[in-house]
Amino acid sequence: MNGATVRVAVVGASGYAGGELMRLLAGHPGVEIASVHARERDGKPVAAELPHLAPLGLTFSDGEPGDVDVAFLALPHGASAPVAARLLERGVTVVDIGADFRLRDADAYATWYGGPHPAPELLDRAVYGLTEWSRERLAGATLIANPGCYPTAALLALVPFARCGAIAGEVIVDAKSGISGAGRSAGADYLFTELTESTRAYGLGGHRHQPEIEQGLADAGATPHVTFVPHLVPQSRGLHATCYLSLGEDLDDAALGQVLHDAYDAEPFVHVTDEPPATKQATGSNHAFVHARRVAERRAVVIGVIDNLGKGAAGQAIQNMNVALGLEETAGLTGLGLHP
Amino acid sequence: MNGATVRVAVVGASGYAGGELMRLLAGHPGVEIASVHARERDGKPVAAELPHLAPLGLTFSDGEPGDVDVAFLALPHGASAPVAARLLERGVTVVDIGADFRLRDADAYATWYGGPHPAPELLDRAVYGLTEWSRERLAGATLIANPGCYPTAALLALVPFARCGAIAGEVIVDAKSGISGAGRSAGADYLFTELTESTRAYGLGGHRHQPEIEQGLADAGATPHVTFVPHLVPQSRGLHATCYLSLGEDLDDAALGQVLHDAYDAEPFVHVTDEPPATKQATGSNHAFVHARRVAERRAVVIGVIDNLGKGAAGQAIQNMNVALGLEETAGLTGLGLHP
Amino acid sequence: MNGATVRVAVVGASGYAGGELMRLLAGHPGVEIASVHARERDGKPVAAELPHLAPLGLTFSDGEPGDVDVAFLALPHGASAPVAARLLERGVTVVDIGADFRLRDADAYATWYGGPHPAPELLDRAVYGLTEWSRERLAGATLIANPGCYPTAALLALVPFARCGAIAGEVIVDAKSGISGAGRSAGADYLFTELTESTRAYGLGGHRHQPEIEQGLADAGATPHVTFVPHLVPQSRGLHATCYLSLGEDLDDAALGQVLHDAYDAEPFVHVTDEPPATKQATGSNHAFVHARRVAERRAVVIGVIDNLGKGAAGQAIQNMNVALGLEETAGLTGLGLHP
Amino acid sequence: MNGATVRVAVVGASGYAGGELMRLLAGHPGVEIASVHARERDGKPVAAELPHLAPLGLTFSDGEPGDVDVAFLALPHGASAPVAARLLERGVTVVDIGADFRLRDADAYATWYGGPHPAPELLDRAVYGLTEWSRERLAGATLIANPGCYPTAALLALVPFARCGAIAGEVIVDAKSGISGAGRSAGADYLFTELTESTRAYGLGGHRHQPEIEQGLADAGATPHVTFVPHLVPQSRGLHATCYLSLGEDLDDAALGQVLHDAYDAEPFVHVTDEPPATKQATGSNHAFVHARRVAERRAVVIGVIDNLGKGAAGQAIQNMNVALGLEETAGLTGLGLHP
Repeated sequence: MNGATVRVAVVGASGYAGGELMRLLAGHPGVEIASVHARERDGKPVAAELPHLAPLGLTFSDGEPGDVDVAFLALPHGASAPVAARLLERGVTVVDIGADFRLRDADAYATWYGGPHPAPELLDRAVYGLTEWSRERLAGATLIANPGCYPTAALLALVPFARCGAIAGEVIVDAKSGISGAGRSAGADYLFTELTESTRAYGLGGHRHQPEIEQGLADAGATPHVTFVPHLVPQSRGLHATCYLSLGEDLDDAALGQVLHDAYDAEPFVHVTDEPPATKQATGSNHAFVHARRVAERRAVVIGVIDNLGKGAAGQAIQNMNVALGLEETAGLTGLGLHP
Repeated sequence: MNGATVRVAVVGASGYAGGELMRLLAGHPGVEIASVHARERDGKPVAAELPHLAPLGLTFSDGEPGDVDVAFLALPHGASAPVAARLLERGVTVVDIGADFRLRDADAYATWYGGPHPAPELLDRAVYGLTEWSRERLAGATLIANPGCYPTAALLALVPFARCGAIAGEVIVDAKSGISGAGRSAGADYLFTELTESTRAYGLGGHRHQPEIEQGLADAGATPHVTFVPHLVPQSRGLHATCYLSLGEDLDDAALGQVLHDAYDAEPFVHVTDEPPATKQATGSNHAFVHARRVAERRAVVIGVIDNLGKGAAGQAIQNMNVALGLEETAGLTGLGLHP
Repeated sequence: MNGATVRVAVVGASGYAGGELMRLLAGHPGVEIASVHARERDGKPVAAELPHLAPLGLTFSDGEPGDVDVAFLALPHGASAPVAARLLERGVTVVDIGADFRLRDADAYATWYGGPHPAPELLDRAVYGLTEWSRERLAGATLIANPGCYPTAALLALVPFARCGAIAGEVIVDAKSGISGAGRSAGADYLFTELTESTRAYGLGGHRHQPEIEQGLADAGATPHVTFVPHLVPQSRGLHATCYLSLGEDLDDAALGQVLHDAYDAEPFVHVTDEPPATKQATGSNHAFVHARRVAERRAVVIGVIDNLGKGAAGQAIQNMNVALGLEETAGLTGLGLHP
Repeated sequence: MNGATVRVAVVGASGYAGGELMRLLAGHPGVEIASVHARERDGKPVAAELPHLAPLGLTFSDGEPGDVDVAFLALPHGASAPVAARLLERGVTVVDIGADFRLRDADAYATWYGGPHPAPELLDRAVYGLTEWSRERLAGATLIANPGCYPTAALLALVPFARCGAIAGEVIVDAKSGISGAGRSAGADYLFTELTESTRAYGLGGHRHQPEIEQGLADAGATPHVTFVPHLVPQSRGLHATCYLSLGEDLDDAALGQVLHDAYDAEPFVHVTDEPPATKQATGSNHAFVHARRVAERRAVVIGVIDNLGKGAAGQAIQNMNVALGLEETAGLTGLGLHP
């Protein structure tokens, strides 16, 4: 891929993650958007649904991508696996922003997603793309499972502690997400009027991102029970994971910070902050911010902050493609957070 | 107080809690607002600073209340104790919305508030007014310490479990508050532009509401370590406390709900919900909503939701006055949440 | 109606205007909510859809009200007229929050609402209830047409100038409304994610509230052409009408203010402000704020601010009922704006 | 400037416009940020005040820029002129985001800005940079007056009609702005709590952007009286100018649209829309959206929408620099609006 332009397609392009992919890919110096696909929209200008993309002049296609190098799939769970299978057969690299290949265990998939996995034979091939911790496996990968937004924020905060063996006992992840995580086809509960000036929890009966967080911790050598409670906060973008850890030994603020600095100081997208980060620092970008504090003896709080559509979806998907193809990892992702 | 009108004063009337007190007291059938006080504003119309109160036609006074039955103090910590002392000498009942009388232990006050208590001789006289759990002591009380907003939401959720001995091990309170909790004189970090579309944690180094929550749990017979992390969410009002409990025995959703129903079904202001409550249900009102769910073996999440200026400040202060004076407990507090 | 309790029903109770009616009527000292009606919800608790009303313990009924004195109709245009006809026959006083009886001219209705009027024989009976300017006709009225939200704000600002003959030439009404005006069944364009941090105009091809504003001005003796452009701003409640007037003679700020003061100083709900009012001053209340300024020779700007669900819908409906029945005009409407 | 890197400085870098300049300049392929200046912050990391810029690793300097090609001044009015004078003497090209060189007439400056112009001898040299209508004068310019945010949105909408002689009679500009226009040092009236869920007008006694709009129209051959009323709406970014025009002859929607299409179809940053544009389409970008509709005989509404910090400040400043130096006009400005 030395210098040649990568031809990409976006499948499921009418949603928020699809829109963010187009926005970012349009600024990627090594990429050409070959086609963008959305059901029942063949020939419709993208700008008719996503007017901020009007300057791109794109048009939706029906069906599946033709001659492309990479396809990004932003489809509901269950829908991307069959598309991925067909594209892989034709030699197209697939980055799945959906959930079909996140859990490596087909039984776990069946339990959490309510039915048998649509393509279990591909599970071994899929690389879970929490980029900072998956680079070796991502190089040359042809099927990439892009992590969920909550697991991305939580695991960026937790994996350094899991890898150094610091975690002892339970982990609680109390997460706050902007509304865009619910997608563009969310219903009446997601009207402006219902959500402005309001915060609420959901998914208390169990959320699919919990086993994904546990899987990510297990990959890093820790197997704590994880309690995960997501909340909606009245903002469009931004995800804040507040993680409560029991530690095997007492660590002060400096020692906790050092764990994060050791993990991330060489990273272009993950930044260790001196103060608790605000979600707005990440808005519109692929940047993540992590912060750790001792709150009691052998008790720490570790915070991970991302834009759920950036590092939590489209941004990380592009970062993963870059690594998989051997492109510059930051290509197309040099944008900073939008403030104020 | 049979039918006679209670003459009340509000001291510290130019802030948000003071404004909410005036708004609510104006609708209290047994109360007359005798005077409202704010420094350096003598003779200034209240409407010049709080234009929503224009229809009341009130004017600020300097100094301290004259001939009144009850004074509400909405002053910075350290400032209310001396005022309270003078008013009590003159036979005025004092409801302190500030922090001076919340912690019963003068040493704890010194530790958390950075100096010796300004009137330690009054600490025994003060009744901590988490109304639902303090009614007996509130009857006839002349000095009432109104709980902090975070402790109110957390303790309404937790006390029923503390009293039945269900809590074993640690308690984590992850709380999300609207910005009005920071007050009307908050600085540049609280500009609209800084906070809209953003969530962040604060107070990780220790927050004064933590010992207050621990004190409230101890009163209810439980002495767990409490980890408390507050967050700011982009809304003006509303407070959501998500409490993570370790239980001594496994309780299912029905058993957890029963603990709350037993505690609150006869209460006019605390409601047990079937779904996770949204902060908006409480906006502008004295109502609170609580909800409990099992999340794992011997692990529960209990949620408390209030309006931080309502049940978390001015509303509860009036409720406490009503109980102290033997008035109808709901007088002046019949307003419902404002939705949408 | 001396002291007896008025039995009321709310028809179309599952929407935002219906919810606000229940919230306000619950605090009306002379009213009993006899029944609340919503299609396909027979027996369903109101709290299941409008959880802020949980403390009321109301249940939806299907069908139409039984033995009631007053019925409030919050139904789509075309749907309320037949219901009103049946209720009037049974001697029930009807306050229609919908649009069916706002335009007195059946032809105008047909033009703007896309079909013949469903009950033209009732148009003469209907009293247009911009309360401050309709009291004489409202006394004893049995069919009341509650004004639209935009016309309420615009006419409160404009009628005083129309009545004194000051208006010469065109009137432009540039209005900004919170999203709740679009209702609880609004679609995907009204998701939080689509509207937060965004302002846009709509209805440029003609909006039904334009002829209603013109009718109201004609009633006050002025017949200017009205240009009306509504906008959505990212807030739930609040309506701000900025009205641009050409005047027959030059009036300075004092003279303009005097016109408003003469009109409203005796009014309990309409307040003339010294500074441009903010919509938040009115949130949750029946209060309106008006303000006038000279901007050039014989050019004035007059601003009207209301809560679109308060004075712009449910609040004014109750005010109109109070006047029609001879109750205290402010009964049930003593609440102030919610700030902050 | 063929290929060589342009060394730039930002003066007044701690504010919102300064922050946006750094964010955008960091992505400009032909530019190097040589230094960023802010009073009383010498040696302070930019990230300490603007944490979204942490990945840039910049540090504030005190004093004035050294060896640079271009300086952007984001300073209060009156402060930039002396700095500009010194920089120009040293051969530095100056783009002034402030107000000092916007009005070409020193007397008008004195009237509207409350004192004599600090450097009247430079007024002739300054080029008013509404880029799309100033390109010839901008080429090679060394002192550029960046337009105000309101004039940018209003003039993009109005100039095409002014140039074709269509405007007859008055023009009314009713503008709605996000709060970031008030700057990062705005006071207590701009707290989140004061502004969320609220809209209000301001500047009714006269706003400095009115003569600037009139000057821009005069440059385009039209001299209508302009009434200008700005409003604050509860969003951080985004500016919506709704312009009401009296036309010399009746133009239908198609004819109105054609005027805009003729003016802008070849432009990279100005887009004519079929539907009324939302401010969110422009968020974070240099794009502008314009739309025209007939509302009555010889009456039109023309809307201009921008991001006040993008095309309304930092974006247009960079666009102007690009044109002045002969760089690619879109360099550093390829970002699209951020949605949702």
